[in-house]
Amino acid sequence: MKLSQLFTKTRRNVSKDEESTNAELLIRGGFINKEMAGVYSYLPLGFRVLKKIENIIREEINVLGGEEILMPTLTSIENYKITGREKMDILFKTKLHSGADFFLNQSHEEVVVPLVKQFVNSYKDLPFYVYQIQNKFRNEPRAKSGLLRAREFIMKDLYSFHSNEKDLDLYYEKVAKAYFTIFKKIGLNPILTFASGGTFSKYSHEFQVITEAGEDEIYLCKKCNIAVNKEIIEEQKVCPKCKNKNLEPNRAIEVGNIFKLNTKFSEPFGLLFKDKNGKDQTVIMGCYGIGLGRAMGTVVEASHDEHGIIWPKEIAPYQAHLIALSKDKKAEKLYHDLQKSGSEILYDDRDVSAGEKFADCDLIGCPVRIVVSDRTLEKDSVEVKYRDKDKIEFVKIDKIVEILNK
Amino acid sequence: MKLSQLFTKTRRNVSKDEESTNAELLIRGGFINKEMAGVYSYLPLGFRVLKKIENIIREEINVLGGEEILMPTLTSIENYKITGREKMDILFKTKLHSGADFFLNQSHEEVVVPLVKQFVNSYKDLPFYVYQIQNKFRNEPRAKSGLLRAREFIMKDLYSFHSNEKDLDLYYEKVAKAYFTIFKKIGLNPILTFASGGTFSKYSHEFQVITEAGEDEIYLCKKCNIAVNKEIIEEQKVCPKCKNKNLEPNRAIEVGNIFKLNTKFSEPFGLLFKDKNGKDQTVIMGCYGIGLGRAMGTVVEASHDEHGIIWPKEIAPYQAHLIALSKDKKAEKLYHDLQKSGSEILYDDRDVSAGEKFADCDLIGCPVRIVVSDRTLEKDSVEVKYRDKDKIEFVKIDKIVEILNK
Repeated sequence: MKLSQLFTKTRRNVSKDEESTNAELLIRGGFINKEMAGVYSYLPLGFRVLKKIENIIREEINVLGGEEILMPTLTSIENYKITGREKMDILFKTKLHSGADFFLNQSHEEVVVPLVKQFVNSYKDLPFYVYQIQNKFRNEPRAKSGLLRAREFIMKDLYSFHSNEKDLDLYYEKVAKAYFTIFKKIGLNPILTFASGGTFSKYSHEFQVITEAGEDEIYLCKKCNIAVNKEIIEEQKVCPKCKNKNLEPNRAIEVGNIFKLNTKFSEPFGLLFKDKNGKDQTVIMGCYGIGLGRAMGTVVEASHDEHGIIWPKEIAPYQAHLIALSKDKKAEKLYHDLQKSGSEILYDDRDVSAGEKFADCDLIGCPVRIVVSDRTLEKDSVEVKYRDKDKIEFVKIDKIVEILNK
Repeated sequence: MKLSQLFTKTRRNVSKDEESTNAELLIRGGFINKEMAGVYSYLPLGFRVLKKIENIIREEINVLGGEEILMPTLTSIENYKITGREKMDILFKTKLHSGADFFLNQSHEEVVVPLVKQFVNSYKDLPFYVYQIQNKFRNEPRAKSGLLRAREFIMKDLYSFHSNEKDLDLYYEKVAKAYFTIFKKIGLNPILTFASGGTFSKYSHEFQVITEAGEDEIYLCKKCNIAVNKEIIEEQKVCPKCKNKNLEPNRAIEVGNIFKLNTKFSEPFGLLFKDKNGKDQTVIMGCYGIGLGRAMGTVVEASHDEHGIIWPKEIAPYQAHLIALSKDKKAEKLYHDLQKSGSEILYDDRDVSAGEKFADCDLIGCPVRIVVSDRTLEKDSVEVKYRDKDKIEFVKIDKIVEILNK
């Protein structure tokens, strides 16, 4: 992509009501636009990052046997009366002309359970796993953390359906493993954290990334790299694994959670199956969430410097940022050659100062910076710098493709 | 995909309040689930069709230079007061805890114009083209046509920004051409239809597919294959091209529309640019929509028989439906071989009657049916039938890959 053709521009400043580092850098870099507190548009660069996160998640959830669907935003208040969640404070409400009340779903248990009920008869229909990557709405009283706590946000929500608890336990472990794979690919290194399990299971588990910007507080066992969420530290004062009492408090961001729902939602909706003896049993459920925008915001919180964002390779909007400081046509040719080789290149072909180009490059934060100047061209070379390293190397033009595909 | 693993099942009947053919067949086939009138979930088979339509559209809009973004559902009522559209009957309303009013966007002019305003200064910033593939919400009083008139639906909306009308006109023509390419790939054959242009241009243009299920009425010039929407037939009584007075009335479904907005939205938001003389001018706009679900519903209306859906190859959930009537392992092997060759196969490995398998195959409607039975295996063959043809052929197993990749 040529920067001269991108309709967005980087910005020097953001409005003063933006308090979070992630939103500030993402807005300045032209990744997102703030529509109101907790509601953002994804601009071309941000949309690319979002899609890469989406594809990483989709690939791993498909490996887990997840079947992708798409459920709606609007759901009748009647579904929420069945589960008793119609009083939840964070639900946005709306109305049909007829006066019927609807909620904007904040999660989809009230939709997915009656949906799958139509297809479940026997133990032979179980287990199965259904997921979507879709918008959620939460009427948050405070939404001051940029992408970390949004009122409208994209989430991957996976629901699993089992005939017995043992089967749920096995799948739950598989999902936990897959989550570590997903977050590693996204460039995050979360801590498995024990959290409140509600009425139907002792614990749920969160994937918490330690950073000062976090709204959560977790107590970390450094030996096991396992933590306990502050909300349950009264009852769980030691490391759940090694029983170590010396847990260290840390601020952290919850980027994912997994939850054994057991029969919490299947029971009120009467989601039953006939067991091998023809007897009705209630389906056992698990649910598993990842917020895509929150993951993106967390990467920015965890990976930036005073100049801008430092994107991990797998979710960077482009692999390399090519800066032309020479009017020589070789820069343009290199751009086309690199594109042809399959590399994703952001090409700064604008007629602005070298200083502005370098500043924008650091702010946008692609993994590799390539500079073409009259001086480098004299040696048939370009200047290569990695965003996360200080060293600058000279590389022969015909070796660049090789380096980028490494 | 093995049918035994798909969590959905085909259904014999749908609820009696479902009046439309498209929803009836799509629900019976397990493509969608009705959540309420005008609100549907996309199930695994339907989600695959939706994604294929999405990818066809994305590819062509990218060729037009479209930059993909993602705007939110929630927008402050204040934006709608600026354009005077806050009284629109179809807007769903919701509230923050603070009492602030928000609309669920039914289209995104009120979001995209203030958004791009931050990036437009000079004529050098124009033209550019921004689009998204995103949910829309319309509080329809009657939603009885399945996917043809939904209350919540996915739309591709493209907005173009120009420094002068001539540039808009050129782009508008390019989009019209691209729309024909898109619809042809989706398997639709729409008629370019002149429709009401509003206050800012004489006409808009619709892409109308002639079918009895259509809610629109268009007047067709058979010679030019151009039509006039009934809404303007009083003022436009003849073919706009050949002036033929003999126009034939037809029911039709509007699958896309393109609209010259001129300054209708840029003016109220003050979306200006400096021209070559440094003088402020108002940006000229066009907008271009395609409803993805509606396109899917229209395909079903236009392409089905008494047994079920007949999917066009490009958007079929799977290219072939493999039916095993033999317990021989060769069916399973063929399934894996076909998958390895890159073919998308729906494999009916269930322990149900041949009759049920054939009925489900016709209902789901993949382009090719492949039957493996003891009788065909005697000849190292399979039975091949195309969904839209009656003839059944015997094909040697080792030739099948070739046929599917044709």
